[in-house]
Amino acid sequence: MQRRTLALSRVYRLLEPGPVVLVTTCRKGTPNLMTMSWHTMIDFDPPIVGCVISNRNYTFGLLKAAGECVISIPTARLAAEVVGCGNTSGRRVDKFALFGLTSTAAARVAPPLIAECWANLECVVVDSRMVTKYNLFILEVVKAWIDPTIKTPKTIHHLGEGTFMIAGRTIKLASRMK
Amino acid sequence: MQRRTLALSRVYRLLEPGPVVLVTTCRKGTPNLMTMSWHTMIDFDPPIVGCVISNRNYTFGLLKAAGECVISIPTARLAAEVVGCGNTSGRRVDKFALFGLTSTAAARVAPPLIAECWANLECVVVDSRMVTKYNLFILEVVKAWIDPTIKTPKTIHHLGEGTFMIAGRTIKLASRMK
Repeated sequence: MQRRTLALSRVYRLLEPGPVVLVTTCRKGTPNLMTMSWHTMIDFDPPIVGCVISNRNYTFGLLKAAGECVISIPTARLAAEVVGCGNTSGRRVDKFALFGLTSTAAARVAPPLIAECWANLECVVVDSRMVTKYNLFILEVVKAWIDPTIKTPKTIHHLGEGTFMIAGRTIKLASRMK
Repeated sequence: MQRRTLALSRVYRLLEPGPVVLVTTCRKGTPNLMTMSWHTMIDFDPPIVGCVISNRNYTFGLLKAAGECVISIPTARLAAEVVGCGNTSGRRVDKFALFGLTSTAAARVAPPLIAECWANLECVVVDSRMVTKYNLFILEVVKAWIDPTIKTPKTIHHLGEGTFMIAGRTIKLASRMK
């Protein structure tokens, strides 16, 4: 896929609609990823993101230790891989190999981008005070990449129990909201 | 619209896909609402929700003072009202009157439900320690209502700058994720 930098002030437009994302961390040079839906924008610029990662997940310890990750946003063509990553643990399998995902070097953090995803956000943990009580990591997006050939990404949205909504049509309304 | 109770353990299925929501607070018996997209699930049962409300919004002070709100989830037929609520401030207008929304009594909190919304979640603030730094309120959903006649709600998802995605088709995959 093609890739260009996205202005950090526009990152909220990717995460605000609530897509399922992939979170990639790195341990001793080996990347691992998980599927996640519990995230929210917290501030615009620099983009601050809150994300909840269960302490039962392998990623929890990796993110806590390394303090950086990549959030990648898949589209519907990756739906099977996304669910597969949610059904397996990096403690036992190499998910990049198992699901045929291509890791490619990030610019600012050690964990890699996922070439098959339409957007990739390089993130560092900037506040971990809510990790113990809520499993809530506060991240700053330090670099953002987008595939400029995808104009209306068919993002995936989790409805629970194996059901997913795929992004539908878009409408334009005279919003004064950012 | 019809209404029935939704089990609290299923509330995550409403918020996880990232819909635009309406947040209703109450001051001296007068309800006010705002449009919001910055929210995430934090825990399943009881359902804990994090939501970010700018301290520039009228709702910020009302929620901080009263400690309770209703989160209502609209569908696409309310899109104009949703954007209208985002473009106006309760400091100056009565949004329920201006946008023809019907308030109806909640069971556990003072702010009312919105009859035109397909789901209504009665919430209390359970942790306000992140309010000063991040405008982040931690809410517990104490009662949930849903319109049982709406099977595949056409939720609204903000893409920024007046563009909104409407929920599209759903797919079923063998997920072991909750």
